[in-house]
Amino acid sequence: MSKLFFIALFATVVLAQDLPLMPWPANVSRGQGELILNPSFRISSFGGDARLHDAALRLADRLFRETGIPISREFTDVAATLAIIVEEKKTDDESYHLLVDSHQARLTSTGPLGALRGMETLLQLVHIGPSGFSIPAVDIDDQPRFAWRGLSLDVSRHFIPPDAIKRTIDGLAAVKMNVLHWHLSDDQGFRVESKKYPKLQQKGSDGQFYTQAEIREIVAYAAARGVRIVPEFDIPGHATSWFPGYPNLASGTGPYEIVRTGGVLRATMDPAKESTYRFLDGFIGEMAKLFPDPYFHIGGDEVSATGEWSHNPHISAFMKKHKLADFRALQAYFNRRVQKIVAAHHKRMMGWDEILHPDLPKNVVIQSWRGQESLADAARKGYNGILSNGYYLDLMYPASQHYAVDPLKGATAGLSSDERKRILGGEAAMWEELATEENIDVKLWPRLAAVAERFWSLESVADPASMYRRLGPVSHWLETQGLEHLQEIRVMQERLAPDAAPQVAILASILEPMKGYTRHRARKYGSLVPFNRLVDAIPPESDAAREFADETDRAVMRRKLAGWRDNARAVTPKLAANPMLAEIVEVANAIEELCSIGLEALDSHPAPERAQAMLAIIDRDSKPKAEMLIQIAPSIRKIVDPNSMPAVSK
Amino acid sequence: MSKLFFIALFATVVLAQDLPLMPWPANVSRGQGELILNPSFRISSFGGDARLHDAALRLADRLFRETGIPISREFTDVAATLAIIVEEKKTDDESYHLLVDSHQARLTSTGPLGALRGMETLLQLVHIGPSGFSIPAVDIDDQPRFAWRGLSLDVSRHFIPPDAIKRTIDGLAAVKMNVLHWHLSDDQGFRVESKKYPKLQQKGSDGQFYTQAEIREIVAYAAARGVRIVPEFDIPGHATSWFPGYPNLASGTGPYEIVRTGGVLRATMDPAKESTYRFLDGFIGEMAKLFPDPYFHIGGDEVSATGEWSHNPHISAFMKKHKLADFRALQAYFNRRVQKIVAAHHKRMMGWDEILHPDLPKNVVIQSWRGQESLADAARKGYNGILSNGYYLDLMYPASQHYAVDPLKGATAGLSSDERKRILGGEAAMWEELATEENIDVKLWPRLAAVAERFWSLESVADPASMYRRLGPVSHWLETQGLEHLQEIRVMQERLAPDAAPQVAILASILEPMKGYTRHRARKYGSLVPFNRLVDAIPPESDAAREFADETDRAVMRRKLAGWRDNARAVTPKLAANPMLAEIVEVANAIEELCSIGLEALDSHPAPERAQAMLAIIDRDSKPKAEMLIQIAPSIRKIVDPNSMPAVSK
Repeated sequence: MSKLFFIALFATVVLAQDLPLMPWPANVSRGQGELILNPSFRISSFGGDARLHDAALRLADRLFRETGIPISREFTDVAATLAIIVEEKKTDDESYHLLVDSHQARLTSTGPLGALRGMETLLQLVHIGPSGFSIPAVDIDDQPRFAWRGLSLDVSRHFIPPDAIKRTIDGLAAVKMNVLHWHLSDDQGFRVESKKYPKLQQKGSDGQFYTQAEIREIVAYAAARGVRIVPEFDIPGHATSWFPGYPNLASGTGPYEIVRTGGVLRATMDPAKESTYRFLDGFIGEMAKLFPDPYFHIGGDEVSATGEWSHNPHISAFMKKHKLADFRALQAYFNRRVQKIVAAHHKRMMGWDEILHPDLPKNVVIQSWRGQESLADAARKGYNGILSNGYYLDLMYPASQHYAVDPLKGATAGLSSDERKRILGGEAAMWEELATEENIDVKLWPRLAAVAERFWSLESVADPASMYRRLGPVSHWLETQGLEHLQEIRVMQERLAPDAAPQVAILASILEPMKGYTRHRARKYGSLVPFNRLVDAIPPESDAAREFADETDRAVMRRKLAGWRDNARAVTPKLAANPMLAEIVEVANAIEELCSIGLEALDSHPAPERAQAMLAIIDRDSKPKAEMLIQIAPSIRKIVDPNSMPAVSK
Repeated sequence: MSKLFFIALFATVVLAQDLPLMPWPANVSRGQGELILNPSFRISSFGGDARLHDAALRLADRLFRETGIPISREFTDVAATLAIIVEEKKTDDESYHLLVDSHQARLTSTGPLGALRGMETLLQLVHIGPSGFSIPAVDIDDQPRFAWRGLSLDVSRHFIPPDAIKRTIDGLAAVKMNVLHWHLSDDQGFRVESKKYPKLQQKGSDGQFYTQAEIREIVAYAAARGVRIVPEFDIPGHATSWFPGYPNLASGTGPYEIVRTGGVLRATMDPAKESTYRFLDGFIGEMAKLFPDPYFHIGGDEVSATGEWSHNPHISAFMKKHKLADFRALQAYFNRRVQKIVAAHHKRMMGWDEILHPDLPKNVVIQSWRGQESLADAARKGYNGILSNGYYLDLMYPASQHYAVDPLKGATAGLSSDERKRILGGEAAMWEELATEENIDVKLWPRLAAVAERFWSLESVADPASMYRRLGPVSHWLETQGLEHLQEIRVMQERLAPDAAPQVAILASILEPMKGYTRHRARKYGSLVPFNRLVDAIPPESDAAREFADETDRAVMRRKLAGWRDNARAVTPKLAANPMLAEIVEVANAIEELCSIGLEALDSHPAPERAQAMLAIIDRDSKPKAEMLIQIAPSIRKIVDPNSMPAVSK
C-alpha cells in the first residue's frame, strides 16, 4: 500500500495525448498509476493459436530489451502481471482491448491478430515512471480504419538482403501495418529463385536473389507477425531482367542485359505469342505455391509507347487480327490473359492503375500511383483499390506531407458509401533507384510510422504537430525494436569522416536530400554507382530544421545559428582534406553564410538594401549543393523578411 | 599517369607503424602509393577450397560495407585488382603474404587458413586516402606466434543467443583468433540440447539453450572463418544444472534446482557410482559427434572441499576401498575414468589446472586459470598447456593490463626450449555472472583485440602506447565488421536516459565499473537480477580518462575539466528525477567536486593545508559509487600533488 501511495503522490500527470503511441488508437483514456515491471512480472496466455504463443514469447524478449529486466518465458495460469486472452483461434478481426492498472495488464481480443496489434501498443507504453520501468494505467479500445495497410518495397533496383526484409517486417508489425507488397522484379533485377525457369535468377540478378527457402522463411516470419506478403512481378513492361535468361519472352530481338540505369525502358514482354502465356502459366503456378497470400500483383505500369511493341511487325499483325486498336487495348488483352492464368492458380490479380479496363473481372484490385481520381474511377466501376499516390517515401518529402494525404479525401470523398468501401486502404511505396541495403531503414523510418497512422487511425487524427511530438519517441522506440535507421546514419557518416564524425553529424543535421525526382536527374545514376556520399547518409527529413522553423525564442535561435555557424567553420578544413567530403565544403560555406545572415538579421532589423542583398544570398544558398538542401534556409529567409516569398527550391 | 602522379604528390606520408593493424604483423613495410577502390574492382581466386571461395564472397560484401562501393561477386581470371592465390587445399599453416601496390593487391598463402587471416589484414587497411577509398601500398609477411589463440566464453551464468555467438566468432576471426572455447554448462544453466538426455536442457536451462541444429550451424559458421569450437562441460563441480533433470548423478540427496546466484557450490557429481560413468559415456558420445573439434574440455575446476563429497558415506566407503587418500585423489580417479571415455570417443581431453595429475596421459591439455607457475609445472611434466590467468576480461581491467601478460614470461620464461613448445598459446576468458546478452560485445571488445595481438604478434610487440594508438581505429573497424560494442552502450544509455542521453554519455565517458571481484560482492547478484544500470552500460575502460591521464597541455586539461564539471552540474536534476539514475546523482556530485578541485589546482598551486583537504576529498570521491569508479580521480590527485600516493581503490 505504501508503494502505491508513493506512486500516486509522485506520478507526473501524463495526459492520454502525451502517450508516445503511433498509430494513435481509436479510443484511449489514461488511468491512475502505473504497472511496475520487475523480475516477478509474469505472462499468461489463454486461447489463440501457436502464432500467438510465439508472439507472447517474443513479447517477453522484447520487454527485456526495453527494460533490461529478465522476463520469464514460462507462462503462468494464475495471477499474471500480463494476461492475454483471445476468444477464437481464427478471425481477421484486428481489434483489441488493453486495460492496464497498477496490478495487471489485460489484453483481450476476438482473435490472435488483435492480440498481436495490442502487444505493440503495450510495448510502446513501456517507459521509466516514478518507480522505474513501468506501463502507465490506460484503457484502450482500438481497431483499424482500413483493412489494407501496406508498404510496397522495390528490391530490384537495389537488392535488399533477407535480414533487412525481416527487420522491415518487424517495423511494419510494430506500427500495425499488415501488408508487405514485395516488388520482386523490374528491369534492373529479377530477385526470386525459380526452379522451373532458373535462368531468370541466373542471368537476371547478378547473384542477388532470394532462394525459395529464404522466401518461405520470410513469408512465415511475416505471417507470425500478422503481415501478409503480396508478391509483384511487373509485366509486360519493367521486365527487362526476365530477358537475358529468356529472350524469347521479349518483343524485340535483343540481346538483353540487366539494366544498370533507371527510367522507363523500351524492352517489353511479347503479348502476341502463345509461348509467352505458357511461360507465365508455368511461372505463376510456381510462384502461387511459394506465396500463400490470396493476392498476386502483376504490375502492369508504364509500358513504353515508343518501345518494342511499335517496332515489331508480328505484333502489328497480331493487333490487326484481334482488332486491338492501340497499345492500351493490346495491354488490356494481355492483362485478360494473365488474369485468367492468375485465377486458375487461385489468386486474385492486382495491378497498377494502367490495368484498369472494363473487360477485367471485378475481383481485380487496383493500386493507384496516379491518385485519388484514378482510384475513384476504379471504385465507381466496381473495383477495389488502394492508394499509393502521395505515399512515395523515395521522394524524400517530410512525414507531414504524406500524413496529409488521405485515401478518402479529394476525388474519393465524393464516392457513395458502397463505393467508399471499395477503397481498401493504402500502401506506402519505396523505390530503390537511389537507396541501398545500407540506408533502407532511414529511407523508410520513422516516416513510415506516420503513414501507418494515416491507414490505421481515425480520419480525424490528422494534426501534424501531434504527429511530430509522438514521432520522435516512436522513432527511438523503433530502434529499440531492432530497426537501424539511426544506426545507419551514424555508421555511414563515421565511414565518411572517421576523424570528424561528430562535427559532420551537426552539419548534416540541418541538411536534406533533394526532393522529388530532381536527384534522379542530377547525375547519371545506376545500380553500379556507389551511394556512399553525405547525401546518402542523412535522413529524408531534418528534425533540427523543423524544430528551428517552429522556434519562437530568439535567444535559442541565436544560440543555434551560432552553433551551426561555428561548427561549419571549424569542420571545413577537415572536409577539404577528405576527398569523399570535398564536395561538402561548398555546403559548409553556405551554412556559415546563412547562419551569419540569420544572426545579423536577429540582432538588428536590416535596412531594405541590406535585406535585398541578404535575400539574394539566401536564394543562392537555397539551391541544391552536393545534391542536398540546407533546410534552415527558409527559416532564415523569414527572419530577414517575414513577408517575402521564398524562391522555389526542389 | 597523371592520376598516379597526383596521388604521389598529395599522399600524406604514412609510416608503417601508423597503420591501424591489430594484431601487428610479423613484418610490415610501407610502399609508395595506394590501390584505389572503385566499382571496377575485381577479385580473382586461385586454389584453395569451398571455404576460401565463400570467404572471398564475404570479402566482397565486407569491402562494400567498408566503402559503400558495389564490389562484384563474380570473380575474374585476369587482371584482378585483388588476386588471392592459395597453394594447397589443406594445411594448418596460417601464414600469408600480402603485397599491395597502386595496381593490384596480391594475397598468397600455402593454405586457405593463411588467406583467411590475410583478408582480415587487407580489410583493416581500407581507408579514405587522397583519391577516396583505397588500400595503402604495403608488403606484409605474417604468421602467428602461438597456434592456440582463443576466447573462453561462459554462456551458463547468462545465456548468449546464437546471433551474438556468431557475431563473437566474426570478431575472433577479425583479430585472427582461432578458438572459441564454449563454456556450455555450469551451476546456473545447461545450454545444449541433448537428445539422449533431454531433461538436461528441459530442467536445466529455463528454456535457454542451443538446439543441436543451432550448434551445427554455429560450428560450421566458425569453421568457415577458421575458428575451432572447443566445447566445455564442467564436471564434477560447477555441475548443479545437470541435477534437476538427473538427480542420480549428484553426490547429495537434492532436490536440485538451477542456481540463481554465483560462487563455488556444494553440489558435485558422484564419482563413486558406475552409473555416473555410463551416463557420461552416453553424453560425451553424443557431444563428440556434435562438436567435430579434436579437443573436449571437461572443466574440472573448483570442486568444493566442504561440499557433497564430505557428507556422503557411500563416497567415503568408495575412497577407502580404492585407497583414495583425499578428495584430490578422488577427483584424479574421476578424471582418469572420464579421460578414458573422452579418448574412446576419439577426443583429446582438456581441463583446468586442477586436473593435472601424473596418472593422466600426456596428451591431456591443461588450461591455466592459476598462472604461469602452474603452466610451467605442467609443461615440465610433459603436458601441453594454455594460459588464461591474466586474461579474465570479466574483471574489468584495462587492455594494457592484459596486454602485459605473456604466456612465456614469468615462471614459464625459465623453461627449456622443448618445454616452451608445450605452451600452445592462451585464451582470454569471459565469465558472465555480471554480463548479459545486452552488453556482451562491450565486455569483450575492443580489449580482446589487444589480447589477440599478444597471442599472434611477436613477443617484442609490447608497447602499450602503440597498442592504444591502434586500438581506437580498430575498435571502430570492428563495429563496421558487425560487432556492436559501441551500439550496445548507446542503446543501454538511451534506455536509461531517454531525455538526457548525450549528457549521460559525457558523464559516463570518465566512469569505469569496479574492478576484480569487488562488484560481485557489492550486492547479491544472480541470473534473475536486472543488469540495466549505468554501470552495465559503460565500457570496462574509459578512453577519455586514459587520454586525460596522458594529457600535458594544461589548457586542454582545463577545458576538459570545465566541460565535465558543467555537464555533471547540468544533468543532475534529470538524474534526480529518474528512478533508474537517482543513484548517479552522487556520482555527478563527485565529478563536479573533483573537476572543481582539478581546476583550482591547475589555476594556482594549492597551499599545503588546502592540498591536504583536497586530497581527502579526492580519496573520498575515489571510492566506488553506484558500483563505478570516477576514473579521472588519480589524474586529479596528481595535479594536486604529483608525489602523493593514491589511495588504493578497487
